[in-house]
Amino acid sequence: MPDRYSEFRRIAQDLRVDAVALVPGANFTRLFNQSFHSHERPLVIVIPASGPPAALVPNLELRSFDQLKFEGEVFDWRDQTGYADAFAALAAHLPMKSVAVEGQVMRVFVHHALTAAYPRLRIVDAEKQISGLRVRKSPAEVAALENAIKISEAALADVLDRVRAGMTEFQVEALLTQALFAQGADAHAFGPIVAAGDNSARPHAHARPDYPIRNGDALLLDFGAQKSGFCADITRTVFVGHATDEAQEVYDTVLRANLKGHDVTKAGITAHQVDDAVTSVLEASPFADRIRTKTGHGLGRDVHEAPYIMRGNHEVLEAGAVFTNEPGLYKIGAFGVRIEDDVLVTETGCRSLTSFPKTLTVVG
Amino acid sequence: MPDRYSEFRRIAQDLRVDAVALVPGANFTRLFNQSFHSHERPLVIVIPASGPPAALVPNLELRSFDQLKFEGEVFDWRDQTGYADAFAALAAHLPMKSVAVEGQVMRVFVHHALTAAYPRLRIVDAEKQISGLRVRKSPAEVAALENAIKISEAALADVLDRVRAGMTEFQVEALLTQALFAQGADAHAFGPIVAAGDNSARPHAHARPDYPIRNGDALLLDFGAQKSGFCADITRTVFVGHATDEAQEVYDTVLRANLKGHDVTKAGITAHQVDDAVTSVLEASPFADRIRTKTGHGLGRDVHEAPYIMRGNHEVLEAGAVFTNEPGLYKIGAFGVRIEDDVLVTETGCRSLTSFPKTLTVVG
Repeated sequence: MPDRYSEFRRIAQDLRVDAVALVPGANFTRLFNQSFHSHERPLVIVIPASGPPAALVPNLELRSFDQLKFEGEVFDWRDQTGYADAFAALAAHLPMKSVAVEGQVMRVFVHHALTAAYPRLRIVDAEKQISGLRVRKSPAEVAALENAIKISEAALADVLDRVRAGMTEFQVEALLTQALFAQGADAHAFGPIVAAGDNSARPHAHARPDYPIRNGDALLLDFGAQKSGFCADITRTVFVGHATDEAQEVYDTVLRANLKGHDVTKAGITAHQVDDAVTSVLEASPFADRIRTKTGHGLGRDVHEAPYIMRGNHEVLEAGAVFTNEPGLYKIGAFGVRIEDDVLVTETGCRSLTSFPKTLTVVG
Repeated sequence: MPDRYSEFRRIAQDLRVDAVALVPGANFTRLFNQSFHSHERPLVIVIPASGPPAALVPNLELRSFDQLKFEGEVFDWRDQTGYADAFAALAAHLPMKSVAVEGQVMRVFVHHALTAAYPRLRIVDAEKQISGLRVRKSPAEVAALENAIKISEAALADVLDRVRAGMTEFQVEALLTQALFAQGADAHAFGPIVAAGDNSARPHAHARPDYPIRNGDALLLDFGAQKSGFCADITRTVFVGHATDEAQEVYDTVLRANLKGHDVTKAGITAHQVDDAVTSVLEASPFADRIRTKTGHGLGRDVHEAPYIMRGNHEVLEAGAVFTNEPGLYKIGAFGVRIEDDVLVTETGCRSLTSFPKTLTVVG
């Protein structure tokens, strides 16, 4: 009989393990439509291949946990006594010899608590399978992503109107943050990147408090709103005052690579093929030595999730997958250009959820 | 010869393990004064009990990693080829049989990558020891906390001026978010709690989109700005329109417990003693059955960190520790009251970094 745990039970069966264990995070929130703070307090749901689930819950979360209408036994624990006894009670109630976990979400202290309660437990990293359940977005999830993207694009338009040479990267980042929240963001989807001049050549740069943006600088903004649990991720690179001939040529190359990614995407293509098509454009240019990253990553409740758009990943993209198409070229010590859109795979092609203009823009 | 790793080397020696391994997070940021995105890409620093450190770094982070002026060997890896070979190269370069890790920060996929590269590695959870290095705040760190708190209090004042009966919890949360960022927050320190009426009785409530706040409701706001890497955490409970006699009596009880916490705190007292003093006030009241939480937790780069202020934790509080003093009483299905200050332990007593008024306040 299918229940809300069916897809997790199937993973346990496929991996020939006794159960799947979930901790708070994107998979948990999707399943229960409610998020939990985790911090230092373990909260674990165990879903066996068959039979009722069980949970280990901090006592002070019980009243929130009630709202999940959880079907199984709940073992709670209090800060004052610790969680070892609750894990032992869980183990007595629901024995297992092997369990699949979200390797990129569960932390080592929970791993240790599980192995202490289940002495010879085999813990299998099933991040790929469990988070893989989130790859195909429902229409409601696509709408939530579009909303986060709309907020982000409105904020970007506002900031680009206000950037001037002489401002520091920090000041531009502050403008961006204010604009995002004025537009209705719940949070940053990730620490934003605002990088000018040589800093733009670092793919994951940090804004500097003391660097005044200069005329002729590239200015790269990579950021996104989180709204209703979904993340936007958009990058635009503009030029302050003017763009040199080299900058224009690099920009055109990156834009052609980005457009190539849109062109080739449709249901049935592999992640490898998309990255290969995009990266080949960069490789065929005079700037091949400036390639530093793969084409992109999936996007949804997490800002980085499957599918990872890179050579060697032969996963087939299905309709409903959303990923970032973000080629870039980075000249160390000089400047970088990245153009990033959020793309929805459809049966017949793709739809860019991002619509912010990509023509070379001079600001200030 | 002391170097910037001395305190980590001492932990390795104390625990009789070969090394400490750090991953991006608060301890990493404090050590290097730079944060890294982690997501799906492992980045690990290994600090042996003696000798030079080594690092495993995603290739696309190398240009940012350069800024750390790292002293040891760096093994980088690319998305396209994966990280197994880099872990193997690290293991060949820096053999170890045991390692101390941050159990609440490191995730299972890194644990698995380490044990794959070091087959019989003993992984010791040294969260307490490693994060314990952050307990005593420097004057600069206290100033950063005060700044985050100042931003939070200004936002709270703004929101309380604007709350009216009939608004939903969602609307009040949106006002709060906008006010925080208008005041200069870099981020929320954690998902804010805005809970009215019966929802305020859930210690970790979620704002509801569809509950209009009513006259007579308790309204609990628990939130904080993150600024320059430091977190504020403040709770105030106000009443909308009017407060019932029961509400006033409960409020007075919680306030007396909170003030008791300030009274007893000074360097040398234990976390147990503080919680015991605070909780005893609640226990001596007619509302003892509404106690659901310990008194508080440490506060700094993480919003929950050591010292945990609870009975059974006989850790001595040292001057420079900062913790939350947040007693509360929660009547399930009716209302809850929590009052939370951020407190700096000093040699002679304590200093509340929070100064927002605590007299019973009626809004709207």
